[in-house]
Amino acid sequence: MPRRYFEDFPEGYSVELGTFSLSADDIVAFARQYDPQPMHVDPEAARATAYGGLIASGWQTATSFMRLLVDTVLADTASMGSPGVDSLRWLKPVRPDEVLRARFTVLESRPSNSRPEWGIVRSLGEVLNQADDVVMRFEGVNFLARRPPG
Amino acid sequence: MPRRYFEDFPEGYSVELGTFSLSADDIVAFARQYDPQPMHVDPEAARATAYGGLIASGWQTATSFMRLLVDTVLADTASMGSPGVDSLRWLKPVRPDEVLRARFTVLESRPSNSRPEWGIVRSLGEVLNQADDVVMRFEGVNFLARRPPG
Repeated sequence: MPRRYFEDFPEGYSVELGTFSLSADDIVAFARQYDPQPMHVDPEAARATAYGGLIASGWQTATSFMRLLVDTVLADTASMGSPGVDSLRWLKPVRPDEVLRARFTVLESRPSNSRPEWGIVRSLGEVLNQADDVVMRFEGVNFLARRPPG
Repeated sequence: MPRRYFEDFPEGYSVELGTFSLSADDIVAFARQYDPQPMHVDPEAARATAYGGLIASGWQTATSFMRLLVDTVLADTASMGSPGVDSLRWLKPVRPDEVLRARFTVLESRPSNSRPEWGIVRSLGEVLNQADDVVMRFEGVNFLARRPPG
């Protein structure tokens, strides 16, 4: 049974999702499967790119955020899925062994017109490095069930 | 040495990237690592959700697209990375063993103002099912090197 519902995510609610770190091996393993470009899979070739060394696939930063969001928020929330995300930006390269932290902030929270038993939460997802630079951000939408009466 | 440069991706250029399919095991394995929500990791629990059965994480559809894009287009292109994507939409659930195809279409192609040796390509990425419904779409941006003179 979920513990949290739509009503628990008002506009302005913000939560730290925890930290993660990607080793050079993690970066290469993910990219070999999903994004095998030289700057993600080949440390030697990466040195010759504009990035000057190995960097994580932006999709790995996104999926790492998602895992923290599920573990910290969605696992005990009546989450009904997502129609998509907007303005996903990879603002800074993510390099091996950086300690990154993720944050989730509710931008807008409103009942669904088409499904009265659901609410719609629009959020800002951010990943920050140890210098507090935002390295990735996106706006997400989640459908959450409204709290059952009683 | 890349074979294709910015100049090879004019507005309107469109290419089929090939097909892919996700088995129930693929869906569960990906989701256990990156998006462990009931509709993605637990066929039994998924039946009780609004989706009526196991569906792929939207991030798996996105990374599957990316892999095809790299293999078919970026691998022999002077790709310099991406600042992000817009309007990523998961329009239909992706179910086990569906045969999906991906398509890449250039929406806009212009030289970079800040880096004259690069061009900027804005594209539409789409994943379609066998009924030709678009199940996922997004607008991506890629930095591509301009063709060297001579």
